[in-house]
Amino acid sequence: MKSNELIDRLLKGDRRALAKLITRVEDGFPDSKMVIRQLFQRTGQSQIIGITGPPGSGKSTLVDKITEIIRETDRTVGIIAVDPTSPFTGGALLGDRIRMQLAAKDPGVFIRSMGTRGALGGLSRATNDVIKIMDAFGFDVVIVETVGAGQSEIEIVRTAHTSLVLCVPGLGDSIQTIKAGILEIADVFVINKADRDGVNQLEIELRYMLEMSKYESEEGRWVPPIVRTIAIDGDGVGELVQKIDKHFAFLKHTAKLARFTQQRTEEEIIEIVKNQFAEHLITKARERGDLQNLVDLVSNRRLDPYTAAELLLDPLRDEYKL
Amino acid sequence: MKSNELIDRLLKGDRRALAKLITRVEDGFPDSKMVIRQLFQRTGQSQIIGITGPPGSGKSTLVDKITEIIRETDRTVGIIAVDPTSPFTGGALLGDRIRMQLAAKDPGVFIRSMGTRGALGGLSRATNDVIKIMDAFGFDVVIVETVGAGQSEIEIVRTAHTSLVLCVPGLGDSIQTIKAGILEIADVFVINKADRDGVNQLEIELRYMLEMSKYESEEGRWVPPIVRTIAIDGDGVGELVQKIDKHFAFLKHTAKLARFTQQRTEEEIIEIVKNQFAEHLITKARERGDLQNLVDLVSNRRLDPYTAAELLLDPLRDEYKL
Repeated sequence: MKSNELIDRLLKGDRRALAKLITRVEDGFPDSKMVIRQLFQRTGQSQIIGITGPPGSGKSTLVDKITEIIRETDRTVGIIAVDPTSPFTGGALLGDRIRMQLAAKDPGVFIRSMGTRGALGGLSRATNDVIKIMDAFGFDVVIVETVGAGQSEIEIVRTAHTSLVLCVPGLGDSIQTIKAGILEIADVFVINKADRDGVNQLEIELRYMLEMSKYESEEGRWVPPIVRTIAIDGDGVGELVQKIDKHFAFLKHTAKLARFTQQRTEEEIIEIVKNQFAEHLITKARERGDLQNLVDLVSNRRLDPYTAAELLLDPLRDEYKL
Repeated sequence: MKSNELIDRLLKGDRRALAKLITRVEDGFPDSKMVIRQLFQRTGQSQIIGITGPPGSGKSTLVDKITEIIRETDRTVGIIAVDPTSPFTGGALLGDRIRMQLAAKDPGVFIRSMGTRGALGGLSRATNDVIKIMDAFGFDVVIVETVGAGQSEIEIVRTAHTSLVLCVPGLGDSIQTIKAGILEIADVFVINKADRDGVNQLEIELRYMLEMSKYESEEGRWVPPIVRTIAIDGDGVGELVQKIDKHFAFLKHTAKLARFTQQRTEEEIIEIVKNQFAEHLITKARERGDLQNLVDLVSNRRLDPYTAAELLLDPLRDEYKL
C-alpha cells in the first residue's frame, strides 16, 4: 500500500495504518520525510509526557497505571516504549507482549515499542517522528518511556512537555549520583517503590538538591514536585497524574509552552540540517575524491582529523562566508 | 598550566599531565582541538580493545582480569570506563575508587572513568579523543568498557580494533534479543558467569546465530569465537586474551587493519564536519534572523521541520552545487 493511502486511513482513525506508518518511518523508508511533511499540520495537539528511569525502577508498570488514570477522564493515550538496551535485556519484548494485550482491550490505548532498530538513523530522531505520527492520529496524550540516562535518553525525554524522572530507594549509593543532565530535564520527580527502606533519605536528598539549584533560577519558575508512588498497587499515581496535568497547565498559562515549542523546533531543525548537509557534502567530496585523499592523509598521521574536516569545509566558508 | 606544557610533560610520561589533559578534553576546553592536533602524530600505536555488556554482566571485573593477564607480558594498559547511566546507578563511582587504588600500585596501568559529563559534546566524540591521548601517552593496550547497547555504546565500541560483547546466562529470555547492531560489532563473544544455569543453551544459540550470518559473508573472514569465563575467579580469561591478540594479528596480517583505520578515519572526519558545519551555519542563520523566521513558521505549523531545514541549506546548494 502506498504511504499516501496509509496517511488517509490514519487520519480516519485506522490503527493498522498507524502501526504501518510508524514501521516505515522507523525503518527509514524513502518516503518517511514525505509522511512527516503530510502529517505535520495535524500535529501539536497532544500532551506529551516523558518518563525515564534506571532498569528495574518499575517504569512500565507506572506507565500502565498512569494510562489507566488518564483513561478515566476519557482521554486517549499513545505509548512509545523506547529501550536502547533491548538487544541485551530483551525485557522489553516479553513485557511488551503482555502490555499489547491490555491495550488491545481498550481502543483508546495504543502501545508501540522501539528498540535499536531505528538506531542507525538516530533513535531520538525516529522517536520524534513517531510522536508526530501519534499526535496526528489524534491521541490526547502521548507517553514516551525510556530506560537509562545517557545522552540519547535525555534527548528523547526532552521532547516531552512534562518530563518525569524515576528514582527508587536503595538503587544507588546516594542521590549525588543524579547529575546535571537529568536534573535539568526533570519537571516531576517520582520516587517509585516508596515502601522500600531509604525512601525518606532519598526524598531529603532530592529536596536538598532542588533547594541548591533554586537560587540560580528566575522568579515564577516551576519547582519540580516529588511524588511517592507504589506503581504496582497504584498508590500515588492519581496524585502523580494531577501534578503532570498541573505542569502542562503551568506551561500553557505562563506562555512557557510557546517558548518550549520554539526551542524544540529550533533544535529539531538544526538536527535535520546537520544530518542532511553532511549527507550532501560527503557525497560530493566522495565523488570528487577529496574525501579519500583526506582519509589517506589522516590514516598516515600526516594530517589530524580536525584539520581534515576544516579542509572539507573551507570552500564552503569562502563561498558562503561561513 | 598551559596545555602546551601539559603536552610536553605527557610525552615525557607524566601521569598527572595525562589526567589533566583528559579532563580538559572531556570538559571541552577551548584548546581541546589543539591538544588532539598536537598529539595526533604520536597516535596509532596502541592496540584498542572495546567491551560492552549489560549492567551486572561483570564487565569491570573482567576488564581487571584481562589487564592482569596483559601485564604479565609487560604491556602497559590504559582503561577508559564509560558509563552513560552513571547519573542513576552511581555504581561506577564506588567501583572506580577501588579500581583506581589497584591501578595506583602498578605504574603500568591507568584507569579513567567517563560519565555523562562529556555527554554534551557527544560521549563517543569525547571517548575517541581520550583514546587518542592515551595512545599518544604510549600505552600498549587501551581498553574501553561501556555498559548497554544503545547507539552511543555501539559507536564507542566500534572505535576498538577488537570488540568484545559480553553475555550472561539467564539474563534475557533468549539470544534472539541480541540484535543486528551488536552482532555486527562483535569480534569475540564472551559468556561470563559461565558457571550459571543456561550456559549451554546460550552458547548453542550464539553458535546458531553465527552460523546464520556466516553464509552472507565473504571468504577468509573472522569468525567470532565464543569464550566462556568466570571473571571473578579468572577462569577462561587467559584464553580470552589469546583470542583478542589473535584477532588483532588477523587484522594486521590480512591488511584489514589498514582498511579498518581508513574506515574509522572517514567516519571521524564526517562526524567532525557535521558538528562544525552546523555550528557555523546556525550561527550565520541566527545572525541574519533566518533561523528565527523558520522556527516561527514551523512552530505555527505553516512549515514542517524538514522543509525548513532544506530552506536553510538551499543557498548552499546553489552556491556550492551540493
